[in-house]
Amino acid sequence: MHAITIPEPGGPEALVWSEVPDAVAGEGEVLVEVVAGAVNRADILQRQGFYNPPPGASPYPGLECSGRIAEIGPGVSGWSVGDEVCALLSGGGYAEKVAVPAGQLLPVPKGVDVKRAAALPEVVCTVWSNVFMVAHLRPGETLLVHGGSSGIGTMAIQLAKAVGAKVAVTAGTPEKLERCAALGADILINYREQDFVEEVRKATDGAGADVVLDNMGAKYLGRNVDVLAVNGRLAIIGMQGGIKGELNIATLLGKRAAISATSLRARPPAEKTAIVAAVREHVWPLLDAGHIRPVVDRELPMSDAAAAHRVVEDSGHIGKVLLVTQ
Amino acid sequence: MHAITIPEPGGPEALVWSEVPDAVAGEGEVLVEVVAGAVNRADILQRQGFYNPPPGASPYPGLECSGRIAEIGPGVSGWSVGDEVCALLSGGGYAEKVAVPAGQLLPVPKGVDVKRAAALPEVVCTVWSNVFMVAHLRPGETLLVHGGSSGIGTMAIQLAKAVGAKVAVTAGTPEKLERCAALGADILINYREQDFVEEVRKATDGAGADVVLDNMGAKYLGRNVDVLAVNGRLAIIGMQGGIKGELNIATLLGKRAAISATSLRARPPAEKTAIVAAVREHVWPLLDAGHIRPVVDRELPMSDAAAAHRVVEDSGHIGKVLLVTQ
Repeated sequence: MHAITIPEPGGPEALVWSEVPDAVAGEGEVLVEVVAGAVNRADILQRQGFYNPPPGASPYPGLECSGRIAEIGPGVSGWSVGDEVCALLSGGGYAEKVAVPAGQLLPVPKGVDVKRAAALPEVVCTVWSNVFMVAHLRPGETLLVHGGSSGIGTMAIQLAKAVGAKVAVTAGTPEKLERCAALGADILINYREQDFVEEVRKATDGAGADVVLDNMGAKYLGRNVDVLAVNGRLAIIGMQGGIKGELNIATLLGKRAAISATSLRARPPAEKTAIVAAVREHVWPLLDAGHIRPVVDRELPMSDAAAAHRVVEDSGHIGKVLLVTQ
Repeated sequence: MHAITIPEPGGPEALVWSEVPDAVAGEGEVLVEVVAGAVNRADILQRQGFYNPPPGASPYPGLECSGRIAEIGPGVSGWSVGDEVCALLSGGGYAEKVAVPAGQLLPVPKGVDVKRAAALPEVVCTVWSNVFMVAHLRPGETLLVHGGSSGIGTMAIQLAKAVGAKVAVTAGTPEKLERCAALGADILINYREQDFVEEVRKATDGAGADVVLDNMGAKYLGRNVDVLAVNGRLAIIGMQGGIKGELNIATLLGKRAAISATSLRARPPAEKTAIVAAVREHVWPLLDAGHIRPVVDRELPMSDAAAAHRVVEDSGHIGKVLLVTQ
């Protein structure tokens, strides 16, 4: 089979479409013939040599894919050869085949093309696990999503609206904010021109955001704590704005607020399985019914993953960038 | 009636035992004839002028008391005149009588003297709401309690042991650590001589603490995050070591950990009622059965509250310092 390898860490050109040994389904795994993978920021860090795969994971990048089951490994039930699936991976999605623990498989939702289903696993699992399983967003509450037009952002908007929450988003262009509005976002904040703390307070009668989903880390830490409502929860899932920030504990304590930080890739298989099961129970019916949908910016050939990384690094995209094998 | 008033903020001598108008039970309240109150660090801040009572609260200090019901206000059922009770207050416990919302009353547990029951409401509600309702300490997990010999600390040790957790404590003297051990603490750390991060790691095969209950704030923030286990939860309830600290988000994210900060006094009545109800359900049976008990350092006359504040400010005490009216 072919896969994207990284002979030497570096820029997008470090991604090389290479002939590699076929993936094999082990105990409790199925082999998926990949139709599409999708790009995540973690893949870029891995390409640059800053984020090595966890122990036991595939050496190839790629944290999600869609395709068809080609083989069922020992000890797997409930799935058949030929099933159209998408999957949350610990790696190996930039390849023609990948072995997937059965607990990380999801069926392709009704009405969703198998290719576009590759846009779902990471964003749905990340948003569900952080905004709902950790931060417990409730109907009527306000969610602030930074990077509202990203893959994560576009899914967070849709899921929060589906449960009856109010959604504020930040993004850097009017075009991106318009797309967020089309997905249901209620409060649109251009972070280049507006202060999100002020805008969210203005739009919530001074109350602030009950939950903040943040990809910026240190750069936004102080303002994220400032924008929280009483009993608010800040869920950090990225550190694009740095690692170390000053925390005002008095502000946090005065609001009885909480900060969590998670990543999906590092979770052990049992935690991934639990998240995938929760997602299948709570989010898949919304996808099957067409209430939410994957948002795809563009499709590029997997063999030219470098081009896809350039698109994501330029941050001009809206939603997910797919890598298709055929 | 008499109550401790604070004509001018200042040192312990600012506390003046004064004749004041009688407290009156309003709608949904009972009037308690106070047998004892207890000192909390928040009272010291209030005396110093740094922590004013929340709107609607009594102007007198005192966040907990025990005594007997002297009057039942309109709309209250389930309680009778003469009942021995203890209560979580928003203020007013340093007084001969106090009006208490019925949802903040608890019966004096079996086998506990009515006077000593004044040592229970704040510590039980603080520990239960933070360690269990927010941080979800589970059997088999490790709890690190800073200030293990304080009122909060002595209750946290007992409650964590009662649910089958392992308990590490920090304290500043061998005598205090011995008392913690007698209450069940497994890992004893003298913070003047030992590094708690190193000691907890050593005692947990490198895993760290699943939950940390912290009263130090900024001074310990970095090391508290360092000592957390994967999926660990840091619950901050005090800022004796300062307000602003550097947070390493990468460390937090690498552990999928969380930080919460709360205070009990500022919670609205509905939240206090919910906590009191949870405590009555989960902790009162343990008290009634004698599995856990209030830890009292000494009793002093309420009219000399200044002496009690000096004891707490000197930090030589173990457990709670009571203020008795008779």
